[in-house]
Amino acid sequence: MTEQRTVGVVGVGRMGANMARRLREAGYPVTAVFDVDRDVATIVAAELGALAAETLAGVTASADTILTVVSDDAAMEAIFAERGDSLLAGARGKLFVNCATISPHVHVEVERRAAAAGAASIEACMASSISQARDGTLYLMIGGRRDAFERARPMLDKMSVALRYVGPAGKAAEVKALVNMVMNSNTAALAEGLGLGAALGLDLAMLSEIFAQTGANSRVLETDGMDMAAREHDCFFSAAHAAKDSGIALDLARERGVAVPIAAATKAQYDRMVELGMGDLDKSGIAELTFPGRAGA
Amino acid sequence: MTEQRTVGVVGVGRMGANMARRLREAGYPVTAVFDVDRDVATIVAAELGALAAETLAGVTASADTILTVVSDDAAMEAIFAERGDSLLAGARGKLFVNCATISPHVHVEVERRAAAAGAASIEACMASSISQARDGTLYLMIGGRRDAFERARPMLDKMSVALRYVGPAGKAAEVKALVNMVMNSNTAALAEGLGLGAALGLDLAMLSEIFAQTGANSRVLETDGMDMAAREHDCFFSAAHAAKDSGIALDLARERGVAVPIAAATKAQYDRMVELGMGDLDKSGIAELTFPGRAGA
Repeated sequence: MTEQRTVGVVGVGRMGANMARRLREAGYPVTAVFDVDRDVATIVAAELGALAAETLAGVTASADTILTVVSDDAAMEAIFAERGDSLLAGARGKLFVNCATISPHVHVEVERRAAAAGAASIEACMASSISQARDGTLYLMIGGRRDAFERARPMLDKMSVALRYVGPAGKAAEVKALVNMVMNSNTAALAEGLGLGAALGLDLAMLSEIFAQTGANSRVLETDGMDMAAREHDCFFSAAHAAKDSGIALDLARERGVAVPIAAATKAQYDRMVELGMGDLDKSGIAELTFPGRAGA
Repeated sequence: MTEQRTVGVVGVGRMGANMARRLREAGYPVTAVFDVDRDVATIVAAELGALAAETLAGVTASADTILTVVSDDAAMEAIFAERGDSLLAGARGKLFVNCATISPHVHVEVERRAAAAGAASIEACMASSISQARDGTLYLMIGGRRDAFERARPMLDKMSVALRYVGPAGKAAEVKALVNMVMNSNTAALAEGLGLGAALGLDLAMLSEIFAQTGANSRVLETDGMDMAAREHDCFFSAAHAAKDSGIALDLARERGVAVPIAAATKAQYDRMVELGMGDLDKSGIAELTFPGRAGA
């Protein structure tokens, strides 16, 4: 079987656009892009030499594989709608690779709908950020049928330095929800430690160095610690996304009857950022709630 | 000036006894030990060839440097009492090295009382555990007067691989409180991630590996992750201590008007362990509150 190489991309914000750029470089022609923001779609399409598709069905028609990178459950349900304009129209034989961080049950439902339309679908959850998308160095967790994964693997290999098959549809989203739940809690805890340190007049470079050498060390200390001190909250992963992702995890916890008070307190902090108009800041912006004299403190 | 080498140790639980063993090996004769548990003091004294002192004043009389490793603020205030039996009796010229994790203001008060008695005092806060005490590989944060630190330094070098002068009295305790606050929150967050993962039927070895490779990574994942899954809660750092240390940090936050909801939720979890009779478990035992089917879940 010849590898199916043409790619359509639905959702060309910074993440989706960078994945498209990377795939094009790696020899996968990007034939069509679609975005709810038509202007964005037009600009990205021009850059990539792709069609700015007018309809979702147009993306499906133009490509063998369709990559989707949308914002939430509702958007995902909409692009795979069972009536009206939909990626599922004329989808027989197509392969959908779905990268959004959404609720696990939506991946299960999308796989069902795709199968009913004669198409295959996998989830490819990203545990990395925009620059990794551009460089093809994403950490990707795959959920879905193994045969669909094998079909997508050559392309996924070009996008990823670490490709991990997690289990059937929905399982990768579960893992991703847990990763982000723990990451968000660690971030919120770090903001408290540094914020209180600032209030005590401690040198934050020294404090961060001690954190790094002790039981307080964490990945978010490396990625976000100095940004918190310096108020550098340019967005890599927004507070609004953190709130959404923690919400997915809290829903899972509720369904399973697991008490997660730390995750709940963390979500409340990110919700508070959104309420205060800080939802577009990077997740490190949670330090605005804990450092003395800052906007949300 | 000749180095003052004889050492007395007050508080010879597992940590204090290991520090004493290490110092004796390193050429510092341990002349006297004291513990509120007389039986423990007698056993450790016999092992070390030291006097099991009947009084605190007896420890001070027998040694140049007195190392204290007590359990909390009240014990610290008691051994440095201004009347009755006290380490301060006959303390002129002596050097106190105080290793307990206690409230910063108590270190300030002890330094004041020691100075009034003609003695010197420093805090040497440990960010490590029992085995590091035995091996002389502690991470030590020093607070107090620099001249007192310089006097203690040769001995501290034998106890430590990383010696860090933080600032005046109380400052090392502040840093230690922040380290443990963040560590405890990360531990509680990890227990939620793994507990919910277990409830979802995910493979916990796989989940831990993914955490380690993503934004969910932390020092406590390395030290406590597998213990949480395997219910190995032999005590290195007890839940009761975690509750106490988080309490010190919460008091600091209250004094300074810093909101720390994650730390508060974490302390509530450790308090709950104590209420459930799990205070003697290692801090990893917090997983007993989050894994399905376990005692506190």
